[in-house]
Amino acid sequence: MQTLEKTEPKLAQLKTLLTEINDIESAASLLYWDQATYMPPEGAAARGRQLATLAQIAHTKFTDPQIGQLLEDLRPYEQSLAYDSDEASLIRITRHDYERAVNIPPAFTAKFSQHTAECYEVWAKARATNDFATVAPYLEKTLELSRDRANFFPGYEHIADPLIADADYGMTVKSVRSLFTQLRQELVPIVEAIASQPVADASCLHQHFPEAEQLDFSFKVIEQLGYDFQRGRQDKTLHPFMIKFSTGDVRITTRVRENDLNEGLFSTIHETGHALYEQGVSRAYEATPLAGGTSAGVHESQSRLWENMVGRSRPFWKCFYPQLQETFPQQLGKVDLETFYRAINKVERSLIRTDADEVTYNLHVLIRFDLELQLLEGKLAIRDLPDAWNERYKSDLGITPPNDSIGVLQDVHWYGGAIGGAFQGYTLGNLMSAQFFATATQAHPEIPQQIASGNFTTLHDWLKQNLYQHGRKYTAAELIQRVTGSPLQIEPFISYIKQKFGELYGI
Amino acid sequence: MQTLEKTEPKLAQLKTLLTEINDIESAASLLYWDQATYMPPEGAAARGRQLATLAQIAHTKFTDPQIGQLLEDLRPYEQSLAYDSDEASLIRITRHDYERAVNIPPAFTAKFSQHTAECYEVWAKARATNDFATVAPYLEKTLELSRDRANFFPGYEHIADPLIADADYGMTVKSVRSLFTQLRQELVPIVEAIASQPVADASCLHQHFPEAEQLDFSFKVIEQLGYDFQRGRQDKTLHPFMIKFSTGDVRITTRVRENDLNEGLFSTIHETGHALYEQGVSRAYEATPLAGGTSAGVHESQSRLWENMVGRSRPFWKCFYPQLQETFPQQLGKVDLETFYRAINKVERSLIRTDADEVTYNLHVLIRFDLELQLLEGKLAIRDLPDAWNERYKSDLGITPPNDSIGVLQDVHWYGGAIGGAFQGYTLGNLMSAQFFATATQAHPEIPQQIASGNFTTLHDWLKQNLYQHGRKYTAAELIQRVTGSPLQIEPFISYIKQKFGELYGI
Repeated sequence: MQTLEKTEPKLAQLKTLLTEINDIESAASLLYWDQATYMPPEGAAARGRQLATLAQIAHTKFTDPQIGQLLEDLRPYEQSLAYDSDEASLIRITRHDYERAVNIPPAFTAKFSQHTAECYEVWAKARATNDFATVAPYLEKTLELSRDRANFFPGYEHIADPLIADADYGMTVKSVRSLFTQLRQELVPIVEAIASQPVADASCLHQHFPEAEQLDFSFKVIEQLGYDFQRGRQDKTLHPFMIKFSTGDVRITTRVRENDLNEGLFSTIHETGHALYEQGVSRAYEATPLAGGTSAGVHESQSRLWENMVGRSRPFWKCFYPQLQETFPQQLGKVDLETFYRAINKVERSLIRTDADEVTYNLHVLIRFDLELQLLEGKLAIRDLPDAWNERYKSDLGITPPNDSIGVLQDVHWYGGAIGGAFQGYTLGNLMSAQFFATATQAHPEIPQQIASGNFTTLHDWLKQNLYQHGRKYTAAELIQRVTGSPLQIEPFISYIKQKFGELYGI
Repeated sequence: MQTLEKTEPKLAQLKTLLTEINDIESAASLLYWDQATYMPPEGAAARGRQLATLAQIAHTKFTDPQIGQLLEDLRPYEQSLAYDSDEASLIRITRHDYERAVNIPPAFTAKFSQHTAECYEVWAKARATNDFATVAPYLEKTLELSRDRANFFPGYEHIADPLIADADYGMTVKSVRSLFTQLRQELVPIVEAIASQPVADASCLHQHFPEAEQLDFSFKVIEQLGYDFQRGRQDKTLHPFMIKFSTGDVRITTRVRENDLNEGLFSTIHETGHALYEQGVSRAYEATPLAGGTSAGVHESQSRLWENMVGRSRPFWKCFYPQLQETFPQQLGKVDLETFYRAINKVERSLIRTDADEVTYNLHVLIRFDLELQLLEGKLAIRDLPDAWNERYKSDLGITPPNDSIGVLQDVHWYGGAIGGAFQGYTLGNLMSAQFFATATQAHPEIPQQIASGNFTTLHDWLKQNLYQHGRKYTAAELIQRVTGSPLQIEPFISYIKQKFGELYGI
């Protein structure tokens, strides 16, 4: 094969360059992990500079025209291969990343980083003092820069499309908005119906649960779920996250509140879901752009699948509740399984997204998504954002934030990054989690019973086989179609919610 | 000033390039620290590659002709400045590093790394099975490559000079050998005299001391010594080391043996000595080649000064022994201070360098130094090395290793790196520690009493002022002359040994 003779060295050269870039990015990830776990306070200044240096070197190397030329030279070879072959996928995904990277001028990236760093500082104070006005001018600038950023990718249908594509490639305002509109129509009446019922009693979760025992229990749980501690570890941090340095080193971080059993346990299972995804990516993709989760939404689908569909299910606690009672005999010895199950699935119309239950959670996301589109479209001014926020909370959740600190100022996303693109993944993930889980249990109806006996192998293997191993080979849309046989839909999620919470709340 | 107008941008440019290189090297250091402390087992393969990638990028950037050109352009400016000005020193030390770096071809470095990695693997097995013969051919190759390495720096007087200069710039075989010959003449009779006395009873150190309490005690000790935990931290590892990521982040690692109180405590103080040096370097040198210890010997002088002159002294334990007894009441409650002091200063002719006491330690180093010179000179063949080793142990320490595992195979240095240059620093450090400590106590005779009351400020401040702040500005020789008023000598060390151990052993 004449083509192959010419292309093999070029593909090898591309892989070598990509491995080098991956190594720099992995080192940057470790700098970040260390900063969030063990770094002493006075290491901060140099650490920020070190992170910036590595990011800049990786960016320079990745946007080198040599990479563009190699990708161009490899185009005929790529076209001669099956779309889903590893090599074609590697070239395709690398080209996608390359084109996104070269379109944004480094000077803009620098300006944007500097601005969002300043905006973040101002926001942190503004949130503490309930003072939206001081951060508003910074947010104006962020909005302007977010539009500028989108405009580096002309040809979009909606100005938010390029921003959404950053996290959820293949999704657009049109496709997301269609799903979210249906979802809202379904969810608002469900939330209203639940709100008319007595509130579940979650007081059993708010006793004193010593940190060491909580950590020990969650360690055992996630090991049983299939998290491989030979290829990962768990450390404490302020804001939990999952991070990957290689397929052999995928770590999670956790925080624990001694007066709230929910926090440590479910955030640990959540991060474990992300980690199971990354630990499951094919080793053949190591150190290439294929070695990662394919989109924010698909990643979130795995954290939520394990956290909610598994971790907040009756079968799961049928298995683990006796162990939890043994761990905390004084606190839970006299609390029966049903009371505990209802406590961890308490539904309540509340103000804070990150504390919201499975039913109301997506309404919080939808509010943010709609508002950021209106901002980008120029239909909403920054100065009117707090009122718009509060009105929408009133109409969708029936409550009004008493102040901006726990209203429009609560989430970091707009204040520490672009406006647009950062929220839709949460709800896309929830929708996907239900669609994937329904497909898995359809293929293996024994999964719930297995979970009740502490066996997660069938589910985990199914996910590895159908999702995890592929890394970034398929887009979210391709993956969903391939795995579930249909595009992303809201029905599996609505059906899951209706069944679970219908039974719980008798509605 | 016309010169300044031309040079300022060049100096700024040089600093920018050096900061970038420093950041890459700091990231590599963190990769190493993590590997030695927290990394899960299966992270190893990718970690090795990541470390190699960063080392290669840093080397490529540092040996870029652009740096050579800037250094050349800055020469007139450097010459217009005082020798010990910060800027002249920065240019001078950078040039020194640059010239050493560019003289070694990257292909040689790769070959050398690959060989020493293989040799290390073979050695690890050979040591375990007491089989010098299998590693001998690898050691032959190491010897050849060590000579090749030296030959990239022609014009030396002795072939080991360039290898010594790597770790202890300014020192040569001639200067080191002269000191070491005198030292041996003094030490051998002292060791013989002590050996004729009854052996001290160290059994009190070999009880069961739980790890957590040991760590807790050493934490308090080193904090009181002046180790700044806002700019550092302590973690467990297999082979303790100190490591620096920035002046604000200088960490130590520790190991603890529950049946040996010596191990954890004194290795912690040892690494703290290294860390105090690095924490004390002027912040003005941050992220430049000036921001580090100036030589292996001077670094070791600080670890040994704090470990031995301070940590194994009577005043030190007058302060800390009551606290140690409180920590371990069952084990030490009935052991009096004098017994404990004699136990931690027990002198014994033994086979293992790393376990050796202050008196015999340097004899171990001198044996290795002399043998490696003979190897490099071609006066000793690798096959004859075990016999030469054993003979020298017999003549200097009066004992013969029963096998090569605890004889010629005991230290990693020759088997995991070059032959030549790695051992002299240990003894140079011991000599320097005594000369510096004598100067400090001469200037501040109150230091011992202060130590007895747990106050280390005068000593620490004196070291910061006279040594630490200067980083790499002065060579070891310059620093010693400047601080102590004379070149490095053996007298302060011999006098310290004679006084301390003469009193202990009545000789």
